[in-house]
Amino acid sequence: MATTAGKRNLITDIAGMRVGQAQDAGVATGVTVILPEAPVVAACAVAGGGPGTRETDLLSAGAMVDRVDAVFLSGGSAFGLGAADGVMAGLKRAGRGFSLVDRPGVPPTPIVPGAILYDLANGGDKTWDGLAPYATLGLEAFNSADKDFELGRAGAGYGARAGQHPGGTGSASIVTTEGFTVGAIACVNSFGSVLMPGTNAYWAWPYELEGEFGGGRPPTDYSMDPEDWGAAKANPVLGQNTTIACIATDAALTPAQAQRVAQMALSGFSRAIRPVFAPFDGDAVFVLSTVSDAPVPDPLTVTRIGELAASTLARAITRGVHEARKQTGAVT
Amino acid sequence: MATTAGKRNLITDIAGMRVGQAQDAGVATGVTVILPEAPVVAACAVAGGGPGTRETDLLSAGAMVDRVDAVFLSGGSAFGLGAADGVMAGLKRAGRGFSLVDRPGVPPTPIVPGAILYDLANGGDKTWDGLAPYATLGLEAFNSADKDFELGRAGAGYGARAGQHPGGTGSASIVTTEGFTVGAIACVNSFGSVLMPGTNAYWAWPYELEGEFGGGRPPTDYSMDPEDWGAAKANPVLGQNTTIACIATDAALTPAQAQRVAQMALSGFSRAIRPVFAPFDGDAVFVLSTVSDAPVPDPLTVTRIGELAASTLARAITRGVHEARKQTGAVT
Repeated sequence: MATTAGKRNLITDIAGMRVGQAQDAGVATGVTVILPEAPVVAACAVAGGGPGTRETDLLSAGAMVDRVDAVFLSGGSAFGLGAADGVMAGLKRAGRGFSLVDRPGVPPTPIVPGAILYDLANGGDKTWDGLAPYATLGLEAFNSADKDFELGRAGAGYGARAGQHPGGTGSASIVTTEGFTVGAIACVNSFGSVLMPGTNAYWAWPYELEGEFGGGRPPTDYSMDPEDWGAAKANPVLGQNTTIACIATDAALTPAQAQRVAQMALSGFSRAIRPVFAPFDGDAVFVLSTVSDAPVPDPLTVTRIGELAASTLARAITRGVHEARKQTGAVT
Repeated sequence: MATTAGKRNLITDIAGMRVGQAQDAGVATGVTVILPEAPVVAACAVAGGGPGTRETDLLSAGAMVDRVDAVFLSGGSAFGLGAADGVMAGLKRAGRGFSLVDRPGVPPTPIVPGAILYDLANGGDKTWDGLAPYATLGLEAFNSADKDFELGRAGAGYGARAGQHPGGTGSASIVTTEGFTVGAIACVNSFGSVLMPGTNAYWAWPYELEGEFGGGRPPTDYSMDPEDWGAAKANPVLGQNTTIACIATDAALTPAQAQRVAQMALSGFSRAIRPVFAPFDGDAVFVLSTVSDAPVPDPLTVTRIGELAASTLARAITRGVHEARKQTGAVT
C-alpha cells in the first residue's frame, strides 16, 4: 500500500485537531487558529528576513513551558499578533492553559504562539480607530473551530497575495503505511512565485497527490534563466511578504525532535516557492506533536516525519494558491 | 543576454579567489580550502542535525572580528576540524591574519572558520596514532591553492558518499547581466539522494546550465510515493552524513546581508537533496563577500544574490555527485 493523503486532505486529519477561521471582508484580512484538544509539544523555525511572531522564545529548548494550547496565524502585520488575545479568551472560557498556581480564582495561562503576514496594503479598509480587529477575529476563529474548513480566500490567507497570484490558505495531509499522520496548513503571502516560470506547473509538482492542485507538469525540454522569477512580486517592500504555516503529527515527538522536524519542514518552502526566505519574507513554520503516550521515534523515523512535513507543507502551500486562483477565476 | 555560468564554472570565477585541495588515498579523506586574496565578510548557516564546525560563533552579529582569511571544508569528522591548524600555518607564513597588537614578534591571528563531514567508516585506514592527518592536509591544501581544481573525488569530498552514490566535491558559478558573479563549492556526503526516485534526473534539473550534469529530465507523467527516497542511504547513523558548502560573491554584502544570503542559500540543499537537514546531516553553508569598496546592495539585489546562491549551490552539489559518478563509471 502506498502512502496516501488523509481522508480530508487537511491538517484536521490528525485526531483531536480542529481549525477555526474568521475573516473581515471590509478590512480584507483574517485569522486562523490551529486548535488541538489538549496541550501539545511544539517547535518553531523562522527562515524569512522579516518575521512577526509571538511566544516563540517560549519554544526554545530549556524554557519552562514545553506545551502549547493553540497556534494562531493572522493577517494584519504586527497588529495581527493581537489575534492571540482572542484565542486566549476562548481558551480561558474553556478552562484551558498552563497552571502555575492551582487555586480558585487563579486562572491558568493559555499558551498561544503564532505568526503574522502583511496584508495592510491589499486595498481593504484599514482605517480602524483604537484597538485593531484581530483580537475579535481571533475569538471568532476559536469559536468556529471544526474539522472542516475553507481553503483559498479564508482565514489568515483571506487578504494575501502569492507573488502575482492571489494568495490563500492551503492544507494537506498524508498517512503512512503504518498509520501515523502528518498534516500541514499554510497561509501564503509570498514574495516568490509558486509556478515554474513560463509554465502552468507548480514548483511542488513532484509532491502532488491525487491531482490536488491540477496536475500541471513542466515540458521535458524545460529550461529557464536563473534570474527569471516568473510570477514573483514585481515591486516588493520589506516585510510585506510572508508564508506562515503549521505542521501537526500524531507521532510522539520530543521538543528537540519537533525542532528538527521544523528545520526539515523549511524545505517545503524551498521546494514550493522561488525565491524564498528573502529579506522581504517572514517565513515561519510551527510543528505540533499531539501524542505523548507513545514511544519516542528513532532518528530515522524523525527523518521520515521531517521529510513528510516538508512535502506536505509544499502541497499545502501550493493548494492554498491553487484554491485561491480557482476562486478568483484564474484557473478552473 | 541571459544569465550564464562563469568562464570556469567554478567558485574561482570570483576575482582573487583560489581553492586548494589535498587528499590522502590511504586514509580515504581530504581537505578543501577556499582562499580569498584578502580578508572577506563572512556568514554561516547551519541546518543539519549533526554539525561539526569551528569558528562559527565568531560570525555571529556583534562579534569583534567580521572578516575571515579563509574557509576550510574537511573529511574526518571532528578530527577534520584540525585542518584549520594547517591553513593557519600557511596564512601565518604569508603574514596574514587579524592583528590586535601591531608590534614585531606579535603575529596576526588568521581567522579560518570551517566545517567537517563524516568519512570515518568509508573503508580507508583510520588507524593513525597520535595527531590526525588533517593539519598536514590543511597546509597541503593551502599550498596547492589555485584557480583550477579537480571536481568529484577530490578534497574534502574525496571519501564521501551521497546517498547510495559516490559523493564528491562540486562547484559552479553564475554571472549576472550586469557582471557580478556568484560561485559555490560543495562537498557532498548526504544522507539523502540527489536523484529523483526511479529516474536518471537530478532533483536540481531545473537549475542546470549548459548540460553541466548530463541533462537528465523526469518523464512528464512522473509520480512518486512521498515515502520513496530513491537512492538515499539505507542505514544511516547519526552524524555520518553532511553536505558542507561555501558561497562566494563579488557583491559588497554587509555581514547581516551575508547572513541573509546564507539562509537563502539553504534552499539549494533543499532543491538538490531529498531528504535533507535530517538528524543524520550536518549541513552547513558559508557565504563570503570579496568586495567592500562598492555600494551596499538594496534588499531586492540581496534577494537576487540569495536566490543565485541557492541555485548555484544546488548546481555545485549536483555536479559534485555527477563528477564522482563519472569517475567511478556510474555514468558516462
